[in-house]
Amino acid sequence: MMMDEDVEQASLLSFNDRPRAFPNMRSKTYSPLIFRILRRLNVRVLSIILLICFGVIFFMGASTSPIILFVFTVCIISFLLSLYLTKWVLAKDEGPPEMVQISDAIRDGAEGFFRTQYSTISKMAILLAFVILCIYLFRSLTPQQEAAGLGRAMSAYITVAAFLLGALCSGIAGYVGMWVSVRANVRVSSAARRSAREALQIAVRAGGFSALVVVGMAVIGIAILYSTFYVLLGVDDSPGSMSVNDLPLLLVGYGFGASFVALFAQLGGGIYTKGADVGADLVGKVEQGIPEDDPRNPAVIADLVGDNVGDCAARGADLFESIAAEIISAMILGGTMAKKCKIEDPSGFILFPLVVHSFDLVISSIGILSIKGTRNASVKSPVEDPMAVLQKGYSLTIILAVLTFGASTRWLLYTEQAPSAWFSFALCGLVGIITAYAFVWISKYYTDYKHEPVRTLALASSTGHGTNIIAGVSLGLESTALPVLVISVAIISAYWLGNTSGLVDENGIPTGGLFGTAVATMGMLSTAAYVLTMDMFGPIADNAGGIVEMSQQPESVREITDLLDAVGNTTKAATKGFAIGSAALASFLLFSAYMDEVSAFASVSFKEVDIAIPEVFVGGLLGSMLIFLFSAWACAAVGRTAQEVVNEVRRQFIERPGIMEYKEKPDYSRCVAIVASAALREMIKPGALAIASPIVVGLVFRILGYYTGQPLLGAKVVASMLMFATVCGILMALFLNTAGGAWDNAKKYIETGALGGKGSEAHKAAVTGDTVGDPFKDTAGPSIHVLIKMLATITLVMAPVFL
Amino acid sequence: MMMDEDVEQASLLSFNDRPRAFPNMRSKTYSPLIFRILRRLNVRVLSIILLICFGVIFFMGASTSPIILFVFTVCIISFLLSLYLTKWVLAKDEGPPEMVQISDAIRDGAEGFFRTQYSTISKMAILLAFVILCIYLFRSLTPQQEAAGLGRAMSAYITVAAFLLGALCSGIAGYVGMWVSVRANVRVSSAARRSAREALQIAVRAGGFSALVVVGMAVIGIAILYSTFYVLLGVDDSPGSMSVNDLPLLLVGYGFGASFVALFAQLGGGIYTKGADVGADLVGKVEQGIPEDDPRNPAVIADLVGDNVGDCAARGADLFESIAAEIISAMILGGTMAKKCKIEDPSGFILFPLVVHSFDLVISSIGILSIKGTRNASVKSPVEDPMAVLQKGYSLTIILAVLTFGASTRWLLYTEQAPSAWFSFALCGLVGIITAYAFVWISKYYTDYKHEPVRTLALASSTGHGTNIIAGVSLGLESTALPVLVISVAIISAYWLGNTSGLVDENGIPTGGLFGTAVATMGMLSTAAYVLTMDMFGPIADNAGGIVEMSQQPESVREITDLLDAVGNTTKAATKGFAIGSAALASFLLFSAYMDEVSAFASVSFKEVDIAIPEVFVGGLLGSMLIFLFSAWACAAVGRTAQEVVNEVRRQFIERPGIMEYKEKPDYSRCVAIVASAALREMIKPGALAIASPIVVGLVFRILGYYTGQPLLGAKVVASMLMFATVCGILMALFLNTAGGAWDNAKKYIETGALGGKGSEAHKAAVTGDTVGDPFKDTAGPSIHVLIKMLATITLVMAPVFL
Repeated sequence: MMMDEDVEQASLLSFNDRPRAFPNMRSKTYSPLIFRILRRLNVRVLSIILLICFGVIFFMGASTSPIILFVFTVCIISFLLSLYLTKWVLAKDEGPPEMVQISDAIRDGAEGFFRTQYSTISKMAILLAFVILCIYLFRSLTPQQEAAGLGRAMSAYITVAAFLLGALCSGIAGYVGMWVSVRANVRVSSAARRSAREALQIAVRAGGFSALVVVGMAVIGIAILYSTFYVLLGVDDSPGSMSVNDLPLLLVGYGFGASFVALFAQLGGGIYTKGADVGADLVGKVEQGIPEDDPRNPAVIADLVGDNVGDCAARGADLFESIAAEIISAMILGGTMAKKCKIEDPSGFILFPLVVHSFDLVISSIGILSIKGTRNASVKSPVEDPMAVLQKGYSLTIILAVLTFGASTRWLLYTEQAPSAWFSFALCGLVGIITAYAFVWISKYYTDYKHEPVRTLALASSTGHGTNIIAGVSLGLESTALPVLVISVAIISAYWLGNTSGLVDENGIPTGGLFGTAVATMGMLSTAAYVLTMDMFGPIADNAGGIVEMSQQPESVREITDLLDAVGNTTKAATKGFAIGSAALASFLLFSAYMDEVSAFASVSFKEVDIAIPEVFVGGLLGSMLIFLFSAWACAAVGRTAQEVVNEVRRQFIERPGIMEYKEKPDYSRCVAIVASAALREMIKPGALAIASPIVVGLVFRILGYYTGQPLLGAKVVASMLMFATVCGILMALFLNTAGGAWDNAKKYIETGALGGKGSEAHKAAVTGDTVGDPFKDTAGPSIHVLIKMLATITLVMAPVFL
Repeated sequence: MMMDEDVEQASLLSFNDRPRAFPNMRSKTYSPLIFRILRRLNVRVLSIILLICFGVIFFMGASTSPIILFVFTVCIISFLLSLYLTKWVLAKDEGPPEMVQISDAIRDGAEGFFRTQYSTISKMAILLAFVILCIYLFRSLTPQQEAAGLGRAMSAYITVAAFLLGALCSGIAGYVGMWVSVRANVRVSSAARRSAREALQIAVRAGGFSALVVVGMAVIGIAILYSTFYVLLGVDDSPGSMSVNDLPLLLVGYGFGASFVALFAQLGGGIYTKGADVGADLVGKVEQGIPEDDPRNPAVIADLVGDNVGDCAARGADLFESIAAEIISAMILGGTMAKKCKIEDPSGFILFPLVVHSFDLVISSIGILSIKGTRNASVKSPVEDPMAVLQKGYSLTIILAVLTFGASTRWLLYTEQAPSAWFSFALCGLVGIITAYAFVWISKYYTDYKHEPVRTLALASSTGHGTNIIAGVSLGLESTALPVLVISVAIISAYWLGNTSGLVDENGIPTGGLFGTAVATMGMLSTAAYVLTMDMFGPIADNAGGIVEMSQQPESVREITDLLDAVGNTTKAATKGFAIGSAALASFLLFSAYMDEVSAFASVSFKEVDIAIPEVFVGGLLGSMLIFLFSAWACAAVGRTAQEVVNEVRRQFIERPGIMEYKEKPDYSRCVAIVASAALREMIKPGALAIASPIVVGLVFRILGYYTGQPLLGAKVVASMLMFATVCGILMALFLNTAGGAWDNAKKYIETGALGGKGSEAHKAAVTGDTVGDPFKDTAGPSIHVLIKMLATITLVMAPVFL
């Protein structure tokens, strides 16, 4: 007993008596350049500049469409709301100094990595912008563009500017996600000492802040670009000028910029977080038998930093990109359809996605604010299931979504040509909302230990490591079936609803099908901000738990954060199902846009991708292979990083034997540095593969087509590559996400005491499964979501190269 | 020391003093019905019947084409040769009685399982034959068939007869593979006591026997069917009669029958062998720390039985089906092309594949016979690398293949319309041969521990179970890249060579492209019999090693069988690469045949599969999903079976503590029974999925197409399902095979003493990897090969249902 107390004492000393426990990590306070410039300006000057900006934006909005004005207003209100949420979160106390110290170390690590990572990404983005500029300066224009007097230079500058703006906004989205999470984590831990409900509320509001910023920025960014182009290019109805239907195609650069940054953010962040996590677990949990997030583990700070850069920053960028890509593709399809059906005022069809997401901001805010702290704020009161609280807010949001979605379709999609079309599209939206629900339910079924699959997986752990892995792989592979069936039904029924909406082209052929699918995608994403909030909640709770563990709070506090953490796991898995479902739909839309664009450039009809042609079949083969190779490199990167961490942690345990007895402080910063440099190094290879391969394939087959006399061969092969990669990517991502989530929760299930509980052989096998699942679910899986959409946008932007 | 000797003594007693060590397993000697009937006949009667059969066959051959006569002659000679090889193998001694006992137990287990398995399969086959009959009785005929006076009933009977004959031949191929391996294994172990070289020679000749029978039966079966149809339907050049070009399409039922049986044989056998293997390893190696194939392990006989039913019988059926499917598809394409180009005597183009495989029989026989026993037959002499010996034989076979392939093209593919076409096709064949070589090389690179990848994997084992699995999965995923590039280049270049061969249709459009790809596939499979010999060699050597271990022979004997076993692993991995490459090519060919058939039935041109149509895209999604779900179920089946075995073995160890001290005999037969019944139960679900899903999808979309006014929708969706499943299946099979092989050899590499050697933590992690890899490489992976081709043949046979 004496011994134990000594140890306890020593550890408390080591953390409390040193005023700067992690001095070597805090190099300097960092904020990105743009913030520094803003901060240096006088407040009055700043307000004037802001007002002028607003004025210009509103003026442009007003000259474009009243719908744009509505969108602007909603976005600005939700920005103000998000400011309120931050203020509210930051006003909470940071707890005792030992928590603050740990939180500072995490913040420094996260900001340091963010800075280096984004400086690398921005260099690559600028290089790519230059390449795009060159391509567009030398390409030919479409007949429409020529007719509208859009010069080559103009088209090039527009695309590059959109690309850079998309990249910048994506970067800001990532930064915001991380900024709030490194500040909220310690406040959640502090609140967990008082009440579970308060901790939950802080985590939700912090998540809500970044969700509103991310979604709002995607919407307002596109709205600003759209109205700028509208004013700049003098769009009006007169013949010979740019048609409003063709405007959305100019926004593609924005989507590509966003997905470019998101890809590297997700790869780098994912490798960082899981490299550190796997490394820390393998030595800490498996070899030394110390608990997760134990302060004696030298890799623990790196692991906690990883939650912020991997889950918060990367997920912010990922969702930003999803929403942007999906808005743009729906706008393109709306424009194309409006043109085909000769609808007089097409702006309703084009701007519909922006309005849906404006409503998304409103209803999600209501959902977020509906989660309240209880009055009886005492740890003693029976802890409510946080999942039920979140679920209640989600149900409220969903109900509001159905209502506002119906209203938006009536408002914007009503046309006299087909008076009941809006109702068909409202049903499409309903299909999307139901699909989202089904996806969330299916991922819950396969990853929650309340259900059969995870229990079977846990049982397989009792016969060894091998059977655990086999069962997990089978579970993951099997879990692809239901989502695919759901998405198949959704695509076909939305297409059918759209086709029977009554909208016909001049030959009387129904043309609303694809737009119906687009509206279903909108429906699916109509609660995106709330879903993102739930997603962001997870890593913040996880981090809070880490801080509680490291600052050695009483068991009761840890229990509260553990509970929140477990809920976070489920919401994360559900969000991933949601993200992959929308990726599937969105890229099917972008694919159609790509075919339209190729037709426009080549002035040749490009309506079909015939996989019976050997080259096109080979394109499909290469596309599917890309997914396998990309996943391989992403997983291998985590494995290699983890091995470096394992060796470093083992070295520290050997060289500083005092660590295990709390007598010596581990060198956290060394692990942080190792993981950061490994993540930066390892993200390049898979990222470059994803960007280079469609371009290379397109070019090679363009040349081959030229010599064998097959026109458009490059474009066709790229199209088939894109489709096969999408299909294969959906399946692979579902497999990786679900298997990873199920392994994690099978371990958690055993830790609740089932099958021998902690320390049993079954638990060891389950930890192995969890380790394997880490890079699956948090590196390779989410990166594939981004990859799918990036492929769709890169082919759109690079289309001129393949012709 | 005393103790050890006692133990040794006890064990020897337990095996030697009981005359019938495994009495409860030998229920009765079993031989299939057909053999029993043959045996009851008088020898003289039998000879007369045989002679009459030969006479009829030769007469029909003679009235068809001299090429068929050549094929018959070669096949019959190689059957005679294979009889000589069996006699030679059976003349070898079976070694001491303890070996014979073990071998008898294995044989009984294998034959017992084979009987039950094939009786289940045959019932399903008969049911399916009835379904096919009904479908064909109610379907419409193609205009050509009607013109030729081929009635509905006739067409139905022909298809069903071909289906049943294919199923029967496939069953015989499986039986022959198992028959020889359960007899050769003990002879190889016995010979290993004398000389490594002699053991090698016996294993090779036993493998060669079944390879010659399997390939010969595929060739002669098709040749007989072809000439029967030729004579029966009165094919001649007069208008209004059946054209020789349309004949091959009637053979499709044969391919489907073969792949139907092969699918269940591979699934059942694969689940059997790996369920037993994984279960035995998990308790024996991991928990109890006893060596592989230790006689104390109650699951060891089941494991050894598994090698025979899983590797020998299933691989025989698999290769039979590969060759049959590929010959038929090439014949169809040859016929189609000859028709388009209006070649006067098309029989050369149609019969070319049969001739290529006849030469295959000849040159492979030379290769097999070139492997000789050394004169200096002593264990003491330095052991030669068996891989080098096999490789030398392979090189000889390859050289002969290039020569005979060139000769065959000149003989059969020379036409006056395009005098240099034969040379283009010879080059296509060369492309195929080079592709085969590249595939073998790539699989060797990724699975042999002489190279980087497996060494990296072994290194990852030193940081734990988790990193080992992550590294193995990444390695497997990555290993798909090179084969896909090779196959892409092969498809495109063969297509291009064929297209520039000078063969044009009446409009002057080049038409030789697809046939070029077909010829490349032929080239790839032109050494099939030798490759199958190398493949069969593996499990025989593996089994011989098991018998040596169980009968507790001296270490030096075990060393020899270990060496042969290790070589067997490499050749098995290489054969799988080979099989998947040819599956990829063959199903691309069958796909074209399918489109031709649909066009013929529907009297509507069906030239393209446009994945931009939502339903067709959904078909692709479902096809890829099928592969994931099928793999999931196959792996899960092994996992479940293994868990049953683990529980049984643990129970025996607890209830009979004497087993571990060699004082009590484990109950082997109980494990055999458990595995057998589990395998039979588990093979149904994935098998039914594979067969039902294309039919269900085709029907559903046919109905959907009917109501939405889209003609041919069912056929198109099935086509896209087939293509996506093929692409996804190729990648998945490559992943599963390579990852499994690499894990196995990483373990073997550590067992050579690297990274701590046997018993180290790294070794334990590597054993986990090996366990995971087992169902990957021997159940799911090879089943996908069969699945791909079965999908292609089932869509061909079921085509009338989708219209």
